[in-house]
Amino acid sequence: MRQSSSRSEGALFSGVFSRGGVAACVSDAAWVEAMLDVEAALARALASARLATPEAAAAITQAARAVDLDAARLGAAVAATGTPVVALIEALVAAAPDHAHATIHQGATSQDVIDTAMMLMAKRAGAVVLDDLAAAAGAAAVLADRHRHTVMAGRTLLQQALPVTFGLKAAGWLSAIDEARRRLGEILRERLPVQFGGAAGTLASLNDRGVDVAALLARDLGLAMPVLPWHTNRLPLFGLAAALAGVSLALGKIGRDITLLAQSEVAEVSEGGDVTKGASSTMPHKRNPVGAVAVLACTRRVPGLLATLAAAGEQEHERAAGAWHAEWETFADLLRLTGSAAAWARELLAGLQVHAFRMQRNLDASGGEPVAESLSTLLAPFVGRLVALDLAREAVERARESRRPLIDSFVEHAAAALAKANLGRDDVAQALEPARYLGSTQTWIDRALASHAALRSRGR
Amino acid sequence: MRQSSSRSEGALFSGVFSRGGVAACVSDAAWVEAMLDVEAALARALASARLATPEAAAAITQAARAVDLDAARLGAAVAATGTPVVALIEALVAAAPDHAHATIHQGATSQDVIDTAMMLMAKRAGAVVLDDLAAAAGAAAVLADRHRHTVMAGRTLLQQALPVTFGLKAAGWLSAIDEARRRLGEILRERLPVQFGGAAGTLASLNDRGVDVAALLARDLGLAMPVLPWHTNRLPLFGLAAALAGVSLALGKIGRDITLLAQSEVAEVSEGGDVTKGASSTMPHKRNPVGAVAVLACTRRVPGLLATLAAAGEQEHERAAGAWHAEWETFADLLRLTGSAAAWARELLAGLQVHAFRMQRNLDASGGEPVAESLSTLLAPFVGRLVALDLAREAVERARESRRPLIDSFVEHAAAALAKANLGRDDVAQALEPARYLGSTQTWIDRALASHAALRSRGR
Amino acid sequence: MRQSSSRSEGALFSGVFSRGGVAACVSDAAWVEAMLDVEAALARALASARLATPEAAAAITQAARAVDLDAARLGAAVAATGTPVVALIEALVAAAPDHAHATIHQGATSQDVIDTAMMLMAKRAGAVVLDDLAAAAGAAAVLADRHRHTVMAGRTLLQQALPVTFGLKAAGWLSAIDEARRRLGEILRERLPVQFGGAAGTLASLNDRGVDVAALLARDLGLAMPVLPWHTNRLPLFGLAAALAGVSLALGKIGRDITLLAQSEVAEVSEGGDVTKGASSTMPHKRNPVGAVAVLACTRRVPGLLATLAAAGEQEHERAAGAWHAEWETFADLLRLTGSAAAWARELLAGLQVHAFRMQRNLDASGGEPVAESLSTLLAPFVGRLVALDLAREAVERARESRRPLIDSFVEHAAAALAKANLGRDDVAQALEPARYLGSTQTWIDRALASHAALRSRGR
Amino acid sequence: MRQSSSRSEGALFSGVFSRGGVAACVSDAAWVEAMLDVEAALARALASARLATPEAAAAITQAARAVDLDAARLGAAVAATGTPVVALIEALVAAAPDHAHATIHQGATSQDVIDTAMMLMAKRAGAVVLDDLAAAAGAAAVLADRHRHTVMAGRTLLQQALPVTFGLKAAGWLSAIDEARRRLGEILRERLPVQFGGAAGTLASLNDRGVDVAALLARDLGLAMPVLPWHTNRLPLFGLAAALAGVSLALGKIGRDITLLAQSEVAEVSEGGDVTKGASSTMPHKRNPVGAVAVLACTRRVPGLLATLAAAGEQEHERAAGAWHAEWETFADLLRLTGSAAAWARELLAGLQVHAFRMQRNLDASGGEPVAESLSTLLAPFVGRLVALDLAREAVERARESRRPLIDSFVEHAAAALAKANLGRDDVAQALEPARYLGSTQTWIDRALASHAALRSRGR
Repeated sequence: MRQSSSRSEGALFSGVFSRGGVAACVSDAAWVEAMLDVEAALARALASARLATPEAAAAITQAARAVDLDAARLGAAVAATGTPVVALIEALVAAAPDHAHATIHQGATSQDVIDTAMMLMAKRAGAVVLDDLAAAAGAAAVLADRHRHTVMAGRTLLQQALPVTFGLKAAGWLSAIDEARRRLGEILRERLPVQFGGAAGTLASLNDRGVDVAALLARDLGLAMPVLPWHTNRLPLFGLAAALAGVSLALGKIGRDITLLAQSEVAEVSEGGDVTKGASSTMPHKRNPVGAVAVLACTRRVPGLLATLAAAGEQEHERAAGAWHAEWETFADLLRLTGSAAAWARELLAGLQVHAFRMQRNLDASGGEPVAESLSTLLAPFVGRLVALDLAREAVERARESRRPLIDSFVEHAAAALAKANLGRDDVAQALEPARYLGSTQTWIDRALASHAALRSRGR
Repeated sequence: MRQSSSRSEGALFSGVFSRGGVAACVSDAAWVEAMLDVEAALARALASARLATPEAAAAITQAARAVDLDAARLGAAVAATGTPVVALIEALVAAAPDHAHATIHQGATSQDVIDTAMMLMAKRAGAVVLDDLAAAAGAAAVLADRHRHTVMAGRTLLQQALPVTFGLKAAGWLSAIDEARRRLGEILRERLPVQFGGAAGTLASLNDRGVDVAALLARDLGLAMPVLPWHTNRLPLFGLAAALAGVSLALGKIGRDITLLAQSEVAEVSEGGDVTKGASSTMPHKRNPVGAVAVLACTRRVPGLLATLAAAGEQEHERAAGAWHAEWETFADLLRLTGSAAAWARELLAGLQVHAFRMQRNLDASGGEPVAESLSTLLAPFVGRLVALDLAREAVERARESRRPLIDSFVEHAAAALAKANLGRDDVAQALEPARYLGSTQTWIDRALASHAALRSRGR
Repeated sequence: MRQSSSRSEGALFSGVFSRGGVAACVSDAAWVEAMLDVEAALARALASARLATPEAAAAITQAARAVDLDAARLGAAVAATGTPVVALIEALVAAAPDHAHATIHQGATSQDVIDTAMMLMAKRAGAVVLDDLAAAAGAAAVLADRHRHTVMAGRTLLQQALPVTFGLKAAGWLSAIDEARRRLGEILRERLPVQFGGAAGTLASLNDRGVDVAALLARDLGLAMPVLPWHTNRLPLFGLAAALAGVSLALGKIGRDITLLAQSEVAEVSEGGDVTKGASSTMPHKRNPVGAVAVLACTRRVPGLLATLAAAGEQEHERAAGAWHAEWETFADLLRLTGSAAAWARELLAGLQVHAFRMQRNLDASGGEPVAESLSTLLAPFVGRLVALDLAREAVERARESRRPLIDSFVEHAAAALAKANLGRDDVAQALEPARYLGSTQTWIDRALASHAALRSRGR
Repeated sequence: MRQSSSRSEGALFSGVFSRGGVAACVSDAAWVEAMLDVEAALARALASARLATPEAAAAITQAARAVDLDAARLGAAVAATGTPVVALIEALVAAAPDHAHATIHQGATSQDVIDTAMMLMAKRAGAVVLDDLAAAAGAAAVLADRHRHTVMAGRTLLQQALPVTFGLKAAGWLSAIDEARRRLGEILRERLPVQFGGAAGTLASLNDRGVDVAALLARDLGLAMPVLPWHTNRLPLFGLAAALAGVSLALGKIGRDITLLAQSEVAEVSEGGDVTKGASSTMPHKRNPVGAVAVLACTRRVPGLLATLAAAGEQEHERAAGAWHAEWETFADLLRLTGSAAAWARELLAGLQVHAFRMQRNLDASGGEPVAESLSTLLAPFVGRLVALDLAREAVERARESRRPLIDSFVEHAAAALAKANLGRDDVAQALEPARYLGSTQTWIDRALASHAALRSRGR
């Protein structure tokens, strides 16, 4: 087996799956830092509650900053005790003066440290994700506004359906990103609770002072104070996971749309970036939509991780035998992948090149069919919606068979109905103009932009 | 193949998976009713917007009530068009007078009807689920209060760890149910939006009146008005699914705890109900914990369904080719299973029999070991937490080897430390009293009950 | 709530999700039939082992055929005991003469009946699925052979890459279907074992004759005899589920390809069928690819169900508390959805219309770019693969910028290298001919067809 | 953010999730090595096919061994092209002499290298997993044989049901491991195919020699030659994943059983190992079942990963946009977790301590109830199975109410039936002897051992 000087897992595909700032927030080093932050904050909370001396708290805070911890060494210790916390405490004790030893980890159990560390990591990583999402939403808002009149085919079941504008499509992306980041923001602000219950949730070793210490610890770390310890009530973790999966869902839809719009035969958008971006190892002409593909590469992995966390919620008694442990790396992967997708989406939307000419040409190539609904809309008030729909459908069919323009086919086939309605060929021609058959498009775009502006005005 | 007079799927295991009122809210009949409700409400909204006559709206409302629709016939039609809506409209047209025909389904597309129907079904089914959850929470609150001093072993990794009380355990269940139902309630009140966008989201066939009609439709149906149509932004459905999965997570934990507590060798709780409940087809003595098993039978199926809906969120352009269709039965199953779990949990918690004597006996059988932590707590201020932990651990080990009481082993082994701390055998004996080593237990229980009362006082 | 005369769930969307013959094999009636078949076969096995009289076996066989069982009534009974078997036995007892009563269900437990019934259902449903898959494979083989020279663009990351032929694409579909059905066939023939262990796997109530009866039961039902009872070793069920998921994977890829090829802008294939197929409720021109969409609607639901069954494999002791129950409907859904996808795929492939002209036109529209790799292939022997790749890439870039034909751009840009290689414009032109740049295409197609023929010759 | 000198992810929890030898086979270094092995083998295959010189092949083989590749640098390059292969080739070119450059990567595309590398890694990692599984099976076989007469309670729905022996339980574990490893072995030997298709599956750049080179490449690497390139037919990867999930399923059941048997109140088994194993960070008495918990920690993550790979199988055209990329880390995680579970299980089973005395005591504590079935078995031939079942059930109920021994209750309650059957109190006492009510237990154990021996005799 080829030896590497340092164990470095997850680096090989990091360009795709560790994009942007989030990976550093869920790395091994980030875990260690968060756990040490919890131990230090606990010492301070104990001091605030007069259960420890200020000197001990200061010394532990200092030791937590100074201690040099190798994740691999902690990792090896995990095999003996099931968590890295026992070894982490030993290192902290070794780094702290004797007078502080009794205060280290006082009242806490391993799970308190790991669960609270996860909440801290979520808070830190989440801020990065929110920042990328805000930028992605901003870019989508620019696209929505700039292309509010850029007509293109709306497509249902991958068939051209009715005209829309690219601005409306971008408004849909915007609206989903805004909805997803609003929820993630709520979770980050309100639903990341400290976990502090001691070995079985009672905080027995702190006598009657446990809840006070818990509240002080929450305040110190900027986390929420839960009603109860949540060691085996995994809703806080699951709520976070669901919010992240919501982000992933919103971004995956965008990635999918862009890969479809960037197809050689559609070519309505392309990704920004220089010539080497998206190059193939063999094909000289390829300019792959790397950003959109990378978004999908990340988002496709999220539903399985979410299912793992949902299933892991069935935790036994006061600490689960396996289900809890199964959360750790899954939680970190979920943050990393969602955050990477957000970082990719931010770049992708900011650099997206929109080819209005091609949009128009693709719509024209369908010979008016995507506007055929407007023909039934035209006649419906006079002959009823269903008869009008049949007339339009038959006219489309005849136009296809005879390879004639739809307008000719319709004027001929629906002659009686048109006469009854007192409508002429000009009315039909006007009805077949895509840009005139956009209904509420502008209003919808305005609503999405207004909602986005309102969110931004609240500093988000 | 054995013939059944009527096709009746899902009936065979309905006793487990269609418990309580929720199944009727997601049945085929409920789907048909909800779709017809949408069509009728649309007619009324069109009339309110003066796009249809009041007479047409009234006639369609009447026809939607009167029309006799066979789900199986609609189902067969689905093969041709991909949805049951075309056939449903035909039936509605046949049942309505001519003057109303043009108003039927005006402006809408199949997806509008199905998506809005799903939101209506979620609202109706969700109310049933919330009701069962409120009752389950109420029963848990009673248990938490009644057994706040009922000492039992807290268990971590399925090993006795520290004493807790059954009231604290029930408070944990209560807190999780309350958190899950609070979120579900928010979703039901605020996040079930009408879907109304027409064929591609533009509402083109309603010219510039589409958004008005959408708002009127939302008001008529008691649903939220979305910023934009959400035909391919599936966050509303996913948000609901995640809230339901949160409920399932909370209930699954309870089901797991109860199956464990009801084990023959633990026997700390048993389910209420008569003698035939939980009978075996062969074993005369068996009294199976049917309710807890049924909860788990339901909740174990939820993570997979959630993953399906999360993955289905990647929907193409203006209507997805397959991913949308994959949601329909999955959504209904998710409501049905979560609702059934809630109905089971309600009964289970209301009838739970708690065997305090057995709890005490199981704790006693461990010879004080679960309170051994208190020995290190006792000595920690004097010799440091880590030395104290070692002394206690060694005393436990010696007690086991010599089969002597832990108190004897500890007094002997930690003699020097006890002397240094000026502590005697009586102090050790007191420290080993489980009921005295419960820390914040009562405060936690009070917090859970207060939070529950606050939720109830808001009518939930 | 609208009343329906009979409870009939799953009918509404049956046109999509209960396609073909498989749904009848996993219906409630099919469950009841399979369970009765197990009870009858058990009676015969007991008689063969001389543990019951031939008369009792005959009477029970007769009663199992005659008894009229309502799935809904059994379903209600499930709430009391957790399975429908207790109620089923009561009905069977009521339908059988007194002398046979002691033989009914002798030695068995509920799980034996349900698990063995699942295997029987899998055998019956699986045969239907295999039949549809054989037909789908046959249709793919016809496409592969007929279109072996129909040149089209191969597409990677949804970009035109290199030319392929439609026959090669169809050969890929064929090969996947053949691989998936070969595995499913193996499972159906060899890996569907009888489950017969009695209450805890010991068959204690049959003294030392249990294993004999198990073997006789297996033989009677045409199932495999397992090494041990598998009540809590769920590999037999999981192996079946994995084979079905493999089928789903193969079909989902085909569904995805066809929806992409059928896009308005690509239009290289369309589905067969009449004019009303794929009609929209509003858009007169739409001809949706209903079959491919239906395939995806089914296959998208499979990974979640598979995950449920994989997770449910962690079963406690001698019968699981919930995990086992979670399998029942999941197993039936998995068979139903995979089978429906196979039925859809069979029709889809048999009726697929291939538009060779459009394939050629789409390839031509890319101005030779998909064959640009051949330019580096041409030069590689002379200037090295990497230099050649750069030359070709630059020529593509220049052709794009200058909107000139690729051949002109390349002849100019790579002039020195071409001279060195003694190659002229004609060689370049020939290299840019898609039909000449197909490498091993014909050999691959031949291999897929030969492998398919070999499978068929073994009667599959 | 705390800086670590080297990026080292996945190390922190490696004690649990990277147990045994498998992690090294799926590390970044292992990926790089496997990819270089593919490039080198390709050069040799080209030389064997006379498409390259032996000197070039030798030089590339040498360069692939010598090149120093930093996974992190490759990882960064992934962002530009979507795969690490372009950067890997550049490094290989830099390390090889000029005359070999044209031969490097000739005919291949990035996907060929990555997919074939995955198969190589699977082969290498799989051998480690199989080795651990063989040892785990061996240990289970020893337990099955040694404890074939060690009577304990069989438990259904976590209730004592009937007596079994611990040997039978271990035989069940053995049988599942053997079944799972047999399947994994088949996959490793027969179903890991080389992937070699070039950019779009045609191997166009090798003219008509592509299939020959593919076969030579397969032979060189010890992989199977597929019927067709499988770039977007993901059954090979999915088949492997399903086999690994089967292994996980078998091991998860064992982990669950052992955590349950090791509960404080059951205490029928305990894990081997020294005193520090399973120590708690706070509780001196805790000896946690670390091995069984670690098995579950691993296996609980597998169903979600399997679902990701199943869903990723829907791959577009000739290379998927995202779904393919989503497989890479998921595949490695799946191997790592399954392999770690196997390594844990091996140790766990080899060191398992079985407490026969406690098994007997737990059974005795139920006052004969688990053998109550034998009472109905005793009477069934005389009064019918159902009447006998009622009599036994009523006797159990009376014994419980009156707190009398079951034998007394039964002799009294079933007096008439016993008289009719000419049975006395001694017969009842004998029937209530657990060790006499074990049915086919020994035969089943023999079958499991024989099947295991047969597998071993084939060198597995």
